[in-house]
Amino acid sequence: MAAHKIAIIPGDGIGTEVVPEGLKVLDAAGRKFGIDYEFTHFDWSCERYKDTGEFMPKDGIQQLSGHEAIFLGAVGWPGVPDHVSLWGLLIPIRREFDQYVNLRPVRLFEGVRSPLAGRKPGDIDYYVVRENCEGEYSSMGGRHNRGTEHDMAIQESVFTRRGVDRVMKFAFELAARRGKHVTSATKSNGIIHTMPFWDERFEEMKKAYPGFKTDQFHIDILTAHFVQHPDWFDVVVASNLFGDILSDLGPATTGTIAIAPSANLNPEGKHPSMFEPVHGSAPDIAGKGIANPIGQIWSGAMMLQHMGHQDAHDAILKAIETVLKDGGPKTPDLGGQASTADLGSAIAEVV
Amino acid sequence: MAAHKIAIIPGDGIGTEVVPEGLKVLDAAGRKFGIDYEFTHFDWSCERYKDTGEFMPKDGIQQLSGHEAIFLGAVGWPGVPDHVSLWGLLIPIRREFDQYVNLRPVRLFEGVRSPLAGRKPGDIDYYVVRENCEGEYSSMGGRHNRGTEHDMAIQESVFTRRGVDRVMKFAFELAARRGKHVTSATKSNGIIHTMPFWDERFEEMKKAYPGFKTDQFHIDILTAHFVQHPDWFDVVVASNLFGDILSDLGPATTGTIAIAPSANLNPEGKHPSMFEPVHGSAPDIAGKGIANPIGQIWSGAMMLQHMGHQDAHDAILKAIETVLKDGGPKTPDLGGQASTADLGSAIAEVV
Ligand SMILES: CC(C)[C@H](C(=O)O)[C@@H](O)C(=O)O
Ligand SMILES: CC(C)[C@H](C(=O)O)[C@@H](O)C(=O)O
Repeated sequence: MAAHKIAIIPGDGIGTEVVPEGLKVLDAAGRKFGIDYEFTHFDWSCERYKDTGEFMPKDGIQQLSGHEAIFLGAVGWPGVPDHVSLWGLLIPIRREFDQYVNLRPVRLFEGVRSPLAGRKPGDIDYYVVRENCEGEYSSMGGRHNRGTEHDMAIQESVFTRRGVDRVMKFAFELAARRGKHVTSATKSNGIIHTMPFWDERFEEMKKAYPGFKTDQFHIDILTAHFVQHPDWFDVVVASNLFGDILSDLGPATTGTIAIAPSANLNPEGKHPSMFEPVHGSAPDIAGKGIANPIGQIWSGAMMLQHMGHQDAHDAILKAIETVLKDGGPKTPDLGGQASTADLGSAIAEVV
Repeated sequence: MAAHKIAIIPGDGIGTEVVPEGLKVLDAAGRKFGIDYEFTHFDWSCERYKDTGEFMPKDGIQQLSGHEAIFLGAVGWPGVPDHVSLWGLLIPIRREFDQYVNLRPVRLFEGVRSPLAGRKPGDIDYYVVRENCEGEYSSMGGRHNRGTEHDMAIQESVFTRRGVDRVMKFAFELAARRGKHVTSATKSNGIIHTMPFWDERFEEMKKAYPGFKTDQFHIDILTAHFVQHPDWFDVVVASNLFGDILSDLGPATTGTIAIAPSANLNPEGKHPSMFEPVHGSAPDIAGKGIANPIGQIWSGAMMLQHMGHQDAHDAILKAIETVLKDGGPKTPDLGGQASTADLGSAIAEVV
């Protein structure tokens, strides 16, 4: 099989520390399952921005487009406004490559303590399927009377039938391979144009999946249920913003958001998909070598799955499970003192 | 002192069951502290809507405007679309009366079990100060190509300097009487017009409160912190939508959202303020007489505080605390079998 061409963007902060561990584990899985990679490294980051005024070169998207997948660490650093850094790299990649699904598993592992009382592995095991190309994140809108006492800002959310239907379809197809249960995150009681539309599309989509269990909750009470009843969920489909919130809250209930991975998918494979941990560049712990690399490693596993290597994906997941369960090295967020590299190596060895 | 003129709107579902308990406790506090009320009851509800096509009469706002406060149960019922019921009553009241602060205390009581492991009273004790008149809840926007495959919806959020500043000022003033710590809920990395504006105003407002501790978190990680570090918070200021989410999530971490109250305040007292529990009409348990009335009762206490009766407010809070702690009657959500009326009476007796 030809080598998989993969673009590596470590980015900022702990991104540069966890990506090498992700690669370590990808290498181990590659050796075991006979998978070849061709990695290209890109130094796109806030540092580069400070030097050159750009996150990525003008033809950055074009440079990436020859790859099958993008393996990203984290982007963002104090001193560079977030809305500049993210809209200069992360969000353009998601959109230009039509990565319209952001898939985020939430799972409690044995050996990791949940902040929720009395929860065991199995009680928390669901997916957040987040719309990733439209919705509340849009460049439509702007400022009026800037700097005066009449200053104001308007932000437009855009929901299209095509955009909503395709992410809902993905959620139902995923649920078909799991518990056949889809929950929709809405807020149609407060947000009167887009969310009733979202509900309409969900009603319509349900018809194509008879026998599925479906429900919907307003985002406010849904966050409460994530804490009080995490066992209620199988696949949760949500807009860009609601999915963003739920996919940080969910992992928090599993003990640490540092283990949470994400896959920004162009499901049809017309464009590269991007794999990155849910956590950010974490300036508070960057440079210390203590970041938990599991979010990055698991993202690598999702990348292998997307590229057709289910067996390698499963082996990495099993290795993560084993190391966590069997008292392997634990980084500080997991209550231990191990380094990023210790934990990465331990997982790579078990794969 | 002249009697306080108060409009009573029980509304729908358990609203009609918990409001009488709220009144029972208001009466008890009135007797004890020599407070007189003049109650006017309104039957505005989904039932009325089904009969007449209107939630409130055309001159509803005018009818309410002669009152000092509005004591609301809950609005909404299956069969009436939420965005119809809420935009027909709750939201117009908030806006017409310029109730620009929605104040929502979050507190863990002794005798109530938190779903968070190892949390004790004192660990969870903060306020969410929610903007209540603009932001993400707006009637601007609409549908395009409705019913076709090119169907789409646009929703505009509107943030004004006046609207943002006044709610932030309220938050800082509240913090001045507590721990002098204000946290801002933002999402300026994803939402590029309104949230950077929100951050700018927060930076500006901080200057007027030297010596205060301030911080800000993106809403995604903030929900994680509510679960992992509830002890970090004192006063959290948030936009309409983010405040809505945080004020359901927060109470969920205290064991039951049924105890959470809210005050929709027009702080200057130019218009009536409205007091209502955070929970809704709860069709699943309505009609059984088992709803927890504490959210409604505590809302009544906030109403007394707003009308200048701090002593009566404190006495009701103390009574709630005592009944919960001393093994008084518990409704099913608190793990007991008591009825709504049992719990209401127990609190009224202790006031
Ligand atoms: C019912 C709904 C419109 C309302 C809101 O979102 O404001 C409710 O959730 C609340 O928090 O008061
Ligand atoms: C950094 C930020 C723009 C991003 C998002 O909101 O999408 C992040 O929170 C995420 O979840 O990937």
